[in-house]
Amino acid sequence: MNFASDNTAGVAPEIMAAMAQASDGFAMGYGNDAWTKRAEQRLAEVFKRDVAAFFVTTGTACNSLAIAHMTPPWGAVLCHENAHINTDECGAPEFFGDGCKLIGLPGDDGKISPAVLKATLEKPQWGAPHHVEPSVLSLSQATEAGTIYQVSEIRELADIAHAHGLTVHMDGARLGNALARMNAAPDAATWQAGVDVLSFGATKGGAMGAEAIVFFDKERGNDMGRRRKRGGHLLSKQRFVAAQFETFLADDLWLKLARHANAMADRLSDKLAASGMKPVWPVEANEVFALIPRAACDRLKAKGAAFYERMADGVPASAGVKADSVLVRLVTSFATSTAEVDEFVSIASA
Amino acid sequence: MNFASDNTAGVAPEIMAAMAQASDGFAMGYGNDAWTKRAEQRLAEVFKRDVAAFFVTTGTACNSLAIAHMTPPWGAVLCHENAHINTDECGAPEFFGDGCKLIGLPGDDGKISPAVLKATLEKPQWGAPHHVEPSVLSLSQATEAGTIYQVSEIRELADIAHAHGLTVHMDGARLGNALARMNAAPDAATWQAGVDVLSFGATKGGAMGAEAIVFFDKERGNDMGRRRKRGGHLLSKQRFVAAQFETFLADDLWLKLARHANAMADRLSDKLAASGMKPVWPVEANEVFALIPRAACDRLKAKGAAFYERMADGVPASAGVKADSVLVRLVTSFATSTAEVDEFVSIASA
Amino acid sequence: MNFASDNTAGVAPEIMAAMAQASDGFAMGYGNDAWTKRAEQRLAEVFKRDVAAFFVTTGTACNSLAIAHMTPPWGAVLCHENAHINTDECGAPEFFGDGCKLIGLPGDDGKISPAVLKATLEKPQWGAPHHVEPSVLSLSQATEAGTIYQVSEIRELADIAHAHGLTVHMDGARLGNALARMNAAPDAATWQAGVDVLSFGATKGGAMGAEAIVFFDKERGNDMGRRRKRGGHLLSKQRFVAAQFETFLADDLWLKLARHANAMADRLSDKLAASGMKPVWPVEANEVFALIPRAACDRLKAKGAAFYERMADGVPASAGVKADSVLVRLVTSFATSTAEVDEFVSIASA
Amino acid sequence: MNFASDNTAGVAPEIMAAMAQASDGFAMGYGNDAWTKRAEQRLAEVFKRDVAAFFVTTGTACNSLAIAHMTPPWGAVLCHENAHINTDECGAPEFFGDGCKLIGLPGDDGKISPAVLKATLEKPQWGAPHHVEPSVLSLSQATEAGTIYQVSEIRELADIAHAHGLTVHMDGARLGNALARMNAAPDAATWQAGVDVLSFGATKGGAMGAEAIVFFDKERGNDMGRRRKRGGHLLSKQRFVAAQFETFLADDLWLKLARHANAMADRLSDKLAASGMKPVWPVEANEVFALIPRAACDRLKAKGAAFYERMADGVPASAGVKADSVLVRLVTSFATSTAEVDEFVSIASA
Repeated sequence: MNFASDNTAGVAPEIMAAMAQASDGFAMGYGNDAWTKRAEQRLAEVFKRDVAAFFVTTGTACNSLAIAHMTPPWGAVLCHENAHINTDECGAPEFFGDGCKLIGLPGDDGKISPAVLKATLEKPQWGAPHHVEPSVLSLSQATEAGTIYQVSEIRELADIAHAHGLTVHMDGARLGNALARMNAAPDAATWQAGVDVLSFGATKGGAMGAEAIVFFDKERGNDMGRRRKRGGHLLSKQRFVAAQFETFLADDLWLKLARHANAMADRLSDKLAASGMKPVWPVEANEVFALIPRAACDRLKAKGAAFYERMADGVPASAGVKADSVLVRLVTSFATSTAEVDEFVSIASA
Repeated sequence: MNFASDNTAGVAPEIMAAMAQASDGFAMGYGNDAWTKRAEQRLAEVFKRDVAAFFVTTGTACNSLAIAHMTPPWGAVLCHENAHINTDECGAPEFFGDGCKLIGLPGDDGKISPAVLKATLEKPQWGAPHHVEPSVLSLSQATEAGTIYQVSEIRELADIAHAHGLTVHMDGARLGNALARMNAAPDAATWQAGVDVLSFGATKGGAMGAEAIVFFDKERGNDMGRRRKRGGHLLSKQRFVAAQFETFLADDLWLKLARHANAMADRLSDKLAASGMKPVWPVEANEVFALIPRAACDRLKAKGAAFYERMADGVPASAGVKADSVLVRLVTSFATSTAEVDEFVSIASA
Repeated sequence: MNFASDNTAGVAPEIMAAMAQASDGFAMGYGNDAWTKRAEQRLAEVFKRDVAAFFVTTGTACNSLAIAHMTPPWGAVLCHENAHINTDECGAPEFFGDGCKLIGLPGDDGKISPAVLKATLEKPQWGAPHHVEPSVLSLSQATEAGTIYQVSEIRELADIAHAHGLTVHMDGARLGNALARMNAAPDAATWQAGVDVLSFGATKGGAMGAEAIVFFDKERGNDMGRRRKRGGHLLSKQRFVAAQFETFLADDLWLKLARHANAMADRLSDKLAASGMKPVWPVEANEVFALIPRAACDRLKAKGAAFYERMADGVPASAGVKADSVLVRLVTSFATSTAEVDEFVSIASA
Repeated sequence: MNFASDNTAGVAPEIMAAMAQASDGFAMGYGNDAWTKRAEQRLAEVFKRDVAAFFVTTGTACNSLAIAHMTPPWGAVLCHENAHINTDECGAPEFFGDGCKLIGLPGDDGKISPAVLKATLEKPQWGAPHHVEPSVLSLSQATEAGTIYQVSEIRELADIAHAHGLTVHMDGARLGNALARMNAAPDAATWQAGVDVLSFGATKGGAMGAEAIVFFDKERGNDMGRRRKRGGHLLSKQRFVAAQFETFLADDLWLKLARHANAMADRLSDKLAASGMKPVWPVEANEVFALIPRAACDRLKAKGAAFYERMADGVPASAGVKADSVLVRLVTSFATSTAEVDEFVSIASA
C-alpha cells in the first residue's frame, strides 16, 4: 500500500524492456543517436506540430531549464503559491534563472483564477527598474491539489498572460493524467490553448527518469542545448533517456498508464467518500486529498501504508476540518492495484 | 569499430540486470531507499572509510556540484588547461560555482607538474580583494591525454595545494582505468594521497548514467543534498542510479571492466606502434592518441570506424608530426572486442 | 514641495564640505586610506563595539551584499511582504545570493509579528532537500509603512529567529529616523537586541551615496571584501564614501538630521489630520501615508508638489477608504522646510 | 610622489564644483533628473551619435554590466590574458554574466594580435554544446601595459570578431589618455572602428566615481536599467554621478586632463630613459613600466614614493632584465606635477 507518490512505483515493463534493448551495440553519445531522433519524431506526432525537444532526467531540471530559458534574470514567474516550482524544488528555478523571482498567487483548488492573474498583472508598480518584470506564467497540469485546468481555462489564462507580454509554461509532470481525464487531445490542451513551453513528464507516469522540455515554437529552443549541458543535464548515454520517451509515447502507452492511475484514484476516492472521508478537492487526476481521523491514520501506518500528511490550512471551510482529523495525500500510479486500494480503505474505515 | 568514446558503449549486462530487478515493487523516492544505502555502504568498503556520497547521473554534474561545494564564488579552481571541466563542460563549474574562475595550467602529457603548481600559488598577486582566491586543485585521473598520476605524484601535488589552503578534487571519470593500471588500492590513490573530494565515475566504465560525489571528510558534504536538488540532480526514482553503483562496485566488477578496456587500449597501441603509428602520449588508461596518415584516416572512416580527430598543437615535438598526419583519439571500453581492434589496425596500416 | 522620497534632497552641507576637503592630495585607493579607517572607528564608537564595516554607495548593494553573505544559495530570507528587498530592488538579493529565495510575510503596519514568524518557522515542511532553508530574518527599520520596531519587538523576533538557526539582518536605510524617534541608543537597538548584520544607511539621511554593511561579529565579515569587489562595489576613490560616513556620524549629525526630518513628518501629519486627512499608519519615522481626496491630489500636482500614489489595498479597514480617496506617501528629509509642509497642507485642504 | 595609480588622485576641481552645485534643491531620484539627461546629451555629441548610456560609479561595474549584457551565460569573452577584467576584478564579469567564461589570449605589449584572435576563433572545437561560445571580444584602451590600439588595429580586430558573430567591447577606463595620445576623434576610435559597447571611464581621468556604459546601438541597451538596478548600481541620488560626467565632457575637460597625465608620463619616461632606465613597453598613455635597480627602488620608497612592483615575467627579452632590477609601474594623473616627476627621477638615478 504505497500511496506516498507516483514516483514510488518502479518502471513500466514496456519501458524497462526498451531500455534493455537500447543497450545493444554502440551509439554516439550526447543525443546524437537514433532513439533521440525517434523520440523527437514521436513528440511531433503527439502534438501534431514540429517541436524543439530536450530530454532530461528530472522534473526539477525540466521545469527550471524551461523557465530559465523564458525569463531574464530580472523576470518574475507567476505561479500558484503551492506550485511545485515554488515549494518543492529547493529554489532550482531561481538558481537556473540567475536569481529570477517566483511570485506565488493564491487560488482555490490549487488553481490560478483569471481574476487574480489579471489583477496581479495590472498592478501599477510594474515597469520601473526597481521592480522585476512579469515574464512567465507557469501552470501546473495537474495541479498540486490534484485538480486540472480545463482547456478553456488554460486558454483564458494564456490570453491574459500573452496580452501582458508573458509567455506560458506548463508543468506537465502529470500531463497524461490530466489529458486522460479530460479526454483532450495533447495539441488542443497545450499549444492550441496558448502554452508556449511544456515540461512533459514521463517519470511519474511510468518511466525511470525521463522528462522533455518541449518548445512549440522551435526557435525558442535555440541554445537550450548549451543550457542543458551546462546544467549537467545532457547524459553521455542519452539514448537511454530517449528510449524511455519513445516507448512511453508509443501506442498511447502513456495514456493507458495514466488512465489506470486515474481509475485507481477514483476507486480510492469513491470508497473513502462512501466511508465518510470525502476528498477535500475534486479528484481530477491521480491524487486524493482526504481528511481522515487520526486513529485511522495511525492504523494505516501501523499496517505499513505509505502516504504523506499535509497541513490542513488550505482546505476549504466546507470540508469541515475537525480537531482530530488529518489531511492526507494519496497518490496512485500505473502500478497501483485495486487490492491495495481496497485494503487501504478497509483499514481506514475499520 | 567505435572508438569515439567509452560512452558510446551500452550498459554492462550485470548493471542492466540490476536495474531491471530494482524495478520490482515500490520504494520511497529521492534516495530514501535500500539501494542507495547499500551503494553508500559499498563505497565505504571500497575506500575503507566512512564517506558522504551523493549519486548523480552525469560527470558534468558530478564535477560541478563537487567543485561548487568546495569553492566560494570568488574562488579559483586550478586545473590542467585541457581538463574536461575547463574545456568540455560548457562552463558548468562556473555556473554551479556562481561564477567561480577556472585557471588552466600548462603541463606535459596532460598532467600538472609540482613546479607549475607551486609557481602559480606563489605569485605575489593573491590576497588582495581584486583577485580571485585559489581554492581548489582539480586533478583528472586518468587525464585528458590518457595518462595517469602515480600515487606519489598525487601526494606531492596535494601537499602543495594543502599547504596553500586549497582542497583537492579528483575528476575520476576514468578512475577505474587508472587504478586498474596502477594496481593501486582505491584508498591509497585517493584520500590517503590527499584527495578531499572525488567525482567517481561509473558511466564510462559500464553504467548507464551513474556518478558519485564522494566526500572523504563527511562534514564537507553537509548541505550537498540541497545543492544537488536545486541543480535538478536528485532523481525521484533515485534507486535506479544507486543500483547501478551497487552493482558496479560488487565483486570488483568495475575493475574487471576497466582492465578489459585497458587491455584493448594496449592491444590497439601495440599494434599501431608495430605499424609505425606510435602513440604520442603514454597509454596508461583506455585512450590511445596516435598520429596516422590522412589516407589511413579516410580509409577508416569509409569503413565505418568512429573516432575523433584532435588538434595536434599539443603533441610533443619528438612525436614527429608530419604534414599529412592526423592526430586521432581512440577510446576503448568494456565493450570493445579484440576483433574490432584488429580490424581497425588492419585498415589503418593497409 | 518635494515629498517623493528622502532621496530627492541633495547632500547635507557638512557632508559635501567633507567630500570637497577629502579631494586634497593623494590617497591610496580601494579603502586603504585614512578616511576609511576613521569612519570604521566612528562606527565602533557609535555601536560601542568593534565591528567589521564595508562602505558602499547604494542601499540595494548594502542589503544584497549583507544578505548574500548570511545565506547559502538554498537559503530563504524571511521579510515583510512589502519589504524594500522584496519589492523594490529588482531581485538584487536573489542575484547576489545566487538565487536565494525571499519569503514575504504578511503583517499589520508594515511589521512582522512574532506569531507569524513563529508559525512560519514551525511549518513541518522545512528540513528536506526539496525545500529552501530559512536562513535570515530581515527587519526594516523604519518599515516601508513608516512605522518602527521597538527594541523589545526586535528582541522578541530575533530570539525566535536565533532559536531556529537564523541570523538577523536589519535594513536600516532609515535607522537614524527610527533611533531618533525612540531615543534609543544605537547599540541597544541593534546588536544588543539581536541584530547580527546591519545595513546602515546614510544616503536618505543626508549623504550623497553612502551605506555601511556592519557585522557586529567581525568574523562574519570575512571575505566580504572580495564579495564587494566582485559586485563592483569597491570604489577606487573609496575615501569619498568613507568621508561621507565619517561626517555623518560626527557630532551626532545623523541624529540631528533625522530629528529634523521626523519633526517635519510630524508637522505634516498633524496638519493633515487636523484637516481630516488622518494618516493610515502611525507616523513613527519620516513618512506619512494619508488618504486624500482625488481632487486634493490633483490640485497638489498642478501646483508642482512631488509625491507618489500607492495602492490602497493594504490600508486597514478602520482608515475608511472612500471611492474618491487616494493613498499618498509623503516623505520628509533633512532638507524639508516648514514652509513646504505648510504649503502642501494648505493646498491639500483648500 | 604618488605614482601608484591614477586613482590615488582626488577629484578635478571643476568636477567637484559641479557636484557641490548639483546639491542645491530637490531632484527626482534614480536618474530621472536633468543632470542625467544633459550628460547623456553630451555623450551623444562627443560620439556624434545617439547612444544608450548608463552611468555607474566603478569601472568593475561598468565592465561587468556591459559584458553580461552582451554574452549569454554559456558565452566566452575573449580578452588579453592580462586584461583588467581577467585579473583585477575578482571574477566580477563571471558573477554578473552568470558564470560566463573569460578566455585570456597572449599578446605582446599588452595587445591582442589579429593572428591570435583569428586562430582562436577558428579552432574546430566551437559549436558543440560541450563548449562555451565565443561571444564578446573585449579590448582595453589603453591596455594594462600602457600601450594603445591604433584605430586601424581596432578595426581589424573588430572585423574578425564580427565575422565570427562576436560583439566588441572596449574597456575604456583610460580612453581619454588613448584618444589624447592618438589625437583621434571619439567616434572614429570607437563605433566607427567597430566597437559595439564601451565602458567609458571618468574616474581615473579626474572624476570621483563615474563611468558610463555606452551602447552605440541603442537597442542593445534595452533592459540594462534593470540589470544595473539589480546589481545595486543605480544610485538614488544619481544626479551626482551624471554631474561628474557632464562636467568631465564639457569643454573637452577630459582631454585636457588626459593630455596633462600623458605629458607627465612622457616626462617621466624620457628622464628615466636618459638615466638608463628605459621603459620596457612603449609609453602611449599615462603609464610607465620601467626596470630600475633594487637599490633605486628602495631609495624611492624610503623617500615616500608610492608605486607598485610587478612581476617581470612578461617583459620582452630585449629589455634586458638583470638580477637586481625591479619592474615598476608608474602611473601619472591629472594631478601629477612636474616637480613630483623630477624628484622621482632624481632619487631613482641618484
